[in-house]
Amino acid sequence: MVSPASPIAVLDSGLGGLTVVRALQQQSPAENILYFGDTARVPYGTKSAHTVTAFVREIITYLQRFRPKHVVIACNTATALALPIIKAEFPHLPISGVIEPGARAAVVAAGSKPIPRIAVIATEATVKSKAYERAICRRRQHAHVDVRATPLLVPIIEEGRDDRDALVRVALTQYLKPIAKKLPDVLVLGCTHYPVFKQLISQMMGERCKVIDSAEQCAQDVTQRLQVSGLASPNEDGGYLKCFVTDDPAKFQSLARRFLGTSILNPVHVTIEELTTPPMPTIELRQAG
Amino acid sequence: MVSPASPIAVLDSGLGGLTVVRALQQQSPAENILYFGDTARVPYGTKSAHTVTAFVREIITYLQRFRPKHVVIACNTATALALPIIKAEFPHLPISGVIEPGARAAVVAAGSKPIPRIAVIATEATVKSKAYERAICRRRQHAHVDVRATPLLVPIIEEGRDDRDALVRVALTQYLKPIAKKLPDVLVLGCTHYPVFKQLISQMMGERCKVIDSAEQCAQDVTQRLQVSGLASPNEDGGYLKCFVTDDPAKFQSLARRFLGTSILNPVHVTIEELTTPPMPTIELRQAG
Repeated sequence: MVSPASPIAVLDSGLGGLTVVRALQQQSPAENILYFGDTARVPYGTKSAHTVTAFVREIITYLQRFRPKHVVIACNTATALALPIIKAEFPHLPISGVIEPGARAAVVAAGSKPIPRIAVIATEATVKSKAYERAICRRRQHAHVDVRATPLLVPIIEEGRDDRDALVRVALTQYLKPIAKKLPDVLVLGCTHYPVFKQLISQMMGERCKVIDSAEQCAQDVTQRLQVSGLASPNEDGGYLKCFVTDDPAKFQSLARRFLGTSILNPVHVTIEELTTPPMPTIELRQAG
Repeated sequence: MVSPASPIAVLDSGLGGLTVVRALQQQSPAENILYFGDTARVPYGTKSAHTVTAFVREIITYLQRFRPKHVVIACNTATALALPIIKAEFPHLPISGVIEPGARAAVVAAGSKPIPRIAVIATEATVKSKAYERAICRRRQHAHVDVRATPLLVPIIEEGRDDRDALVRVALTQYLKPIAKKLPDVLVLGCTHYPVFKQLISQMMGERCKVIDSAEQCAQDVTQRLQVSGLASPNEDGGYLKCFVTDDPAKFQSLARRFLGTSILNPVHVTIEELTTPPMPTIELRQAG
């Protein structure tokens, strides 16, 4: 049985989902959080729905042993490609993603314009899935939605480059210029890595374009869901954060600060072998005769 | 039993190893080649030795069913992190990599200078492994070896950008300027993706610096090994190329041309589940009593 003291499980392809953890810690500091970063198989954003769904299935199967009260797929690609199937496969587990909250916030930010222009930047796989178009147009049928792939941003951010770097400025200019030309009302950062460059992106898009951070929106959504279901942590003390990664924990620890704002203590290494080995089947032995 | 008609198995994290296949096809057009690209888990260059070794072990275990006469680890990262362990684990299988041939060619190209300056560009993981320093200094003890990580080049190449792109020029300038300043005699392209930009890199490094392509050197090395062991294919017709990938075969097919120069026919999808599921153990049942 889960209780308000049970942890929230947050999963991502690597480091990006830590921006969701950061927002969760700010909004709901009492919550206990388990974070799973699939750093051995990152990135997801260039891979197929079949592959990403298989990875997410393995991770949730692993995380179930900790009896989480809620699972957050804190990765736009995994939400776009795997969320509906995964929800159907784990019917007793409340699972939410990043796209619905981001789309909802975008529509609200666009105000009452009859045909708002909403732009989204995301990974190749998220773009291909058309998940943002669906989520936005379900709420505002006539919205003009312009979703574009910006595949280099994740590796650029993971290399540790900041917004004074010449290459970062060239990449953002190349990606944003054709979007800015169409004068969108809203730009959604459709990947949990991108908030690292939020300030520079806002500056490049100009004052009249509102920039929506899908990580922040996702955290707000989880906080509300827990309040509604009576499962919000009543703790007065701060909750814990425990991290699990599939590749080198030391590397994860050194890069995590940039996304989380604080340090991470002792991340646990879960090898791919551990993750993919199904639990041994129970064999019932009966004595013959 | 293997024979000259048996295939050569070439494996890589994704697409880069196709530059080795291309060189092999040019040098030994009669050879039958199996290519395995681990596109569901690409890239390897940012990951740990433990993880990359586990991936390579799974792939070679899978490829053994085709009874290859030789296995080529056509990925610098996998060679640097996994080759010695993997060779010990598969003692009956001739396995070679890309680093020794590249290092050998670099030392030859450096000529008779008492302290040649040899620069290498590679992935983060290859740099960390110090495999190039070891391979070069074993041959020229006093060589001055300068190995640098250029982590964005793989995602830039996989995005399909060519050398007229402003971002490619900024990235190469940022990475190569500090290397060129030290006036190296030789620069080794220590990643099988990099030959795609060989011309621009040569131009940026200047005429006096020789650029060594580790993919080409690796193919020459395999051709020689097969001739020495009497296993070179005697076919007069061209050999076949059969590809296996762990992610979407259609995407692989569309990107492969850039690396291989020609099209690929019907790549086979091997899912990660197929790759990681060990064969069912044989259980001997004995009747009780």
